[in-house]
Amino acid sequence: MAYVKFGYPLLRTFCEDVFEGFGFSESETRIITDVVLTADLFGIESHGMQHMVLYYSGIKKGMINVKAKPETVFETPLSAVIDGHGGMGQIIASGAMQKAIEKARDQGIGIVLARNSNHFGIAGYYAKMACDEGYLGLSCTNSQAIMVPTFGRLPMLGSNPIACAMPAEPFDFFFDAATTVVPRGKLEVYGKAGKALPDGWALDKNGNPSRDAADVLKNINAKAGGGIMPLGGNTEISGSHKGYGYGMICEIFSSILSLGTTSNYCAQEDKGGICHGFMAVNPNLFGDPEAIKKHLSTYLQKLRESPKAEGKDRIYTHGEKEIEAIADRKKNGIPLNEGTMVELLEICEALGLDFTSYFGDYMPSEETKKGKQKFY
Amino acid sequence: MAYVKFGYPLLRTFCEDVFEGFGFSESETRIITDVVLTADLFGIESHGMQHMVLYYSGIKKGMINVKAKPETVFETPLSAVIDGHGGMGQIIASGAMQKAIEKARDQGIGIVLARNSNHFGIAGYYAKMACDEGYLGLSCTNSQAIMVPTFGRLPMLGSNPIACAMPAEPFDFFFDAATTVVPRGKLEVYGKAGKALPDGWALDKNGNPSRDAADVLKNINAKAGGGIMPLGGNTEISGSHKGYGYGMICEIFSSILSLGTTSNYCAQEDKGGICHGFMAVNPNLFGDPEAIKKHLSTYLQKLRESPKAEGKDRIYTHGEKEIEAIADRKKNGIPLNEGTMVELLEICEALGLDFTSYFGDYMPSEETKKGKQKFY
Repeated sequence: MAYVKFGYPLLRTFCEDVFEGFGFSESETRIITDVVLTADLFGIESHGMQHMVLYYSGIKKGMINVKAKPETVFETPLSAVIDGHGGMGQIIASGAMQKAIEKARDQGIGIVLARNSNHFGIAGYYAKMACDEGYLGLSCTNSQAIMVPTFGRLPMLGSNPIACAMPAEPFDFFFDAATTVVPRGKLEVYGKAGKALPDGWALDKNGNPSRDAADVLKNINAKAGGGIMPLGGNTEISGSHKGYGYGMICEIFSSILSLGTTSNYCAQEDKGGICHGFMAVNPNLFGDPEAIKKHLSTYLQKLRESPKAEGKDRIYTHGEKEIEAIADRKKNGIPLNEGTMVELLEICEALGLDFTSYFGDYMPSEETKKGKQKFY
Repeated sequence: MAYVKFGYPLLRTFCEDVFEGFGFSESETRIITDVVLTADLFGIESHGMQHMVLYYSGIKKGMINVKAKPETVFETPLSAVIDGHGGMGQIIASGAMQKAIEKARDQGIGIVLARNSNHFGIAGYYAKMACDEGYLGLSCTNSQAIMVPTFGRLPMLGSNPIACAMPAEPFDFFFDAATTVVPRGKLEVYGKAGKALPDGWALDKNGNPSRDAADVLKNINAKAGGGIMPLGGNTEISGSHKGYGYGMICEIFSSILSLGTTSNYCAQEDKGGICHGFMAVNPNLFGDPEAIKKHLSTYLQKLRESPKAEGKDRIYTHGEKEIEAIADRKKNGIPLNEGTMVELLEICEALGLDFTSYFGDYMPSEETKKGKQKFY
C-alpha cells in the first residue's frame, strides 16, 4: 500500500482541528496532538496518526469521555493514584507524570499511577517528560488484552509497554517497547498494507502461529482467542515466559498497585479501564547527576563503537533512531499510509472538516477505500 | 551426562563447610549457602551448586576478597550506594536489600545500589527478601559481558537479570530472568552435558549464530567476540532491540546510577566490579496492601484458568514452577550433574575436605573427569 508524505506543521494544524472538533479544550488539544505527532516524528507509525481512528472510535462509543477531569484519589509525598474517570489517556498521563516529576523534585522519587484511563499513545512520551527535567523517567501502561500468556490461547495481558528515558550526551537514552514481540498497532500497519506477518509474532484462535494480521485483529476484537506472542515467542526455549514476565511487571505497576482494571477486563463493553504507571527518579539520590550523565554517555558511546556483526555496519543505542527520524520527518515530511488517509477522510466528514483544505489535491484511491480493513 | 541426586540437608552441610573453608564467617556462610541452595531448590540449576566452581575460581584469582566489608558511600533517607570492595556478592547484596527494606518500612520506598561486588547468585533471592516482608521487591545486576548488542559481535552487556517478587495467594508472584535469551550458566549446563545449543541463543566470534556452548564460553572468557543474544534474538523483527533495551535498564539501575563498572569492563584482570540494584516498595504508598494483594491473586488465578493453546494443558504464573520444584527437591533430592560433581571433588581436594564423608560411595566416572570442559 502506498505512503504519502505531509509536512509536520500541516499535520499539527490538522490534528488540533480534529481534537478540538472532538470537544477537547485548547490546552488539552495541544497535549494530545503533541503525543500523537511525537510518535510519527520518532518514526513510530503504529502509535501516530494511524491511531486517530482509535480515538475517534473510542469517543463515539463513549469509552473516551471528552469532558472527564482526572481526580487524585490517594496521595503520599512520594506517590499518588489518579482516577481518570474514563478521560483521554494523553491528558491523564501527562498530568500524572507531571505530578511524579514534582515529587521527584521535592523528595527524590515520585511514583504516580492512573486507573480508568484510555490509550495514552507512546509510553516513551511520558518517560521523556521526566528525562527533559534531568531525571530518570519510567512509564508503562496496560491495554486491551492482546498478549497471549505462554501456553495460552486467549489474550490476558496488554501490549504492556515499558519505557525508560535518561539524560545523556549527545542524545538521551530513550527506550520504549511493548512486552509483546510487537504492539497491536504494528499488526494494524501490516493489515492496512495487506502484508503477511513475520513468523513468531501472532497466534490464531487455537493458540497456533498465524501470519494473518486482519484475522488476528478480528479475533482480538471479538475475544475469540488468539493474539500476539510475548517478547520471546511462544516457547520457553526462546524465552516466551520472559516477555510474559515483563508484561506482568507492567501490569503490577499499572493496574495491580492502582487497584485498577487488569488487561483481561480492559476495553470491554465500552469501558476502557486502562491503567498507567509513571516514575521519576532524581539521580541526585545516588551521586552527582552530571557525573552519572557522563558515565551513561561514555557507556553508550562504547556500545556504538563496539565491533559489528559480519554484514552489519552499525550498532544503535536506544533513542538514536528517533533522533534521526525527527530530522528526516521535519525535512521530508511524515509518511502516512493510504489506509490511514481513508480514516482521516472519514473523520473529516464526521466532524464537518474540509479534507481538501488540509491535503489539497491528494485523495486516497477508490481501491484503497474499498479494500481497507476496519480494525475499530 | 548423568545426574545424581543428594538430599538438601547434606548439601547444606557440604556448602557450609566449603564456604567456611574459603574463609567466610559463620553468618556469612549461612547467607551464601542459602542463596546458592535456594537456586537449586527452585530448579534453577544454572545458578546453584554448579556455580561453586565460579566462586572458588574467583577467590583463588583474588577477584573475590573473602575479608572485604561492604561500605555505605552515599545515603539519603530513600537511597544508598554501597561499595562492596570486591567482596562476595551474596553478602553485599543481602545487606543492600536489607537496607532497602528498612527504607521502605520507614519511607515507603528504598533503592539501594551496590558497586565493586561479585556474582550474587539468583537475582530473585533478593526480590524475595522484600516480598517476604510484604513489599514489592525488585533486584537486578550487571555481570561479566556476555550479551552481544543487536548487530554487534562483542559482548557489551551482562546477562543483566531483572527480578520482581510481590505477595500473592496461594503463592507469591516471583519472576527472575536474564535479559539475554538465556543466562551464561545455561550454556555451562549445556556445555557440561555436551549438548548442542538451541537455535537463537548464541553467536560465534564473527557475530553469526552458533550452537557450540563450549566454543561460545571460551570466546566469552577470551573476549574474542561472540556471546549470547538478547531476549528477542539477533534481529529487530524478533525483538532483539527489546532484550538489549531491558538489559540497558538493568545496567542503569546497577552500574550507571552507582557510578560503578559497566558490564563491558566487569571481570577483567581479576577485578569483578559487578554492580547490583535493589528496590523495595511498600504497597501502602498506593492503597490498602491487603486489597492490592487480593487483586494480584485474583488476576494470577484468572491467568492460570485461562484457555490453553492446542496441545498444552497448563498456563504457569511466575513462581509456580519454583514452588513445585522446592517440594520435589525436598522430597527427592537436588539433582547435580556429574560435571559439577567433578568440580566439587576438586574443591574438596583443595580445601582438604573428605569428599566421601559427604557423598559416600558416589564418585564421578573417570570418563566424566577427563571429558569435562573448564569454563572458569
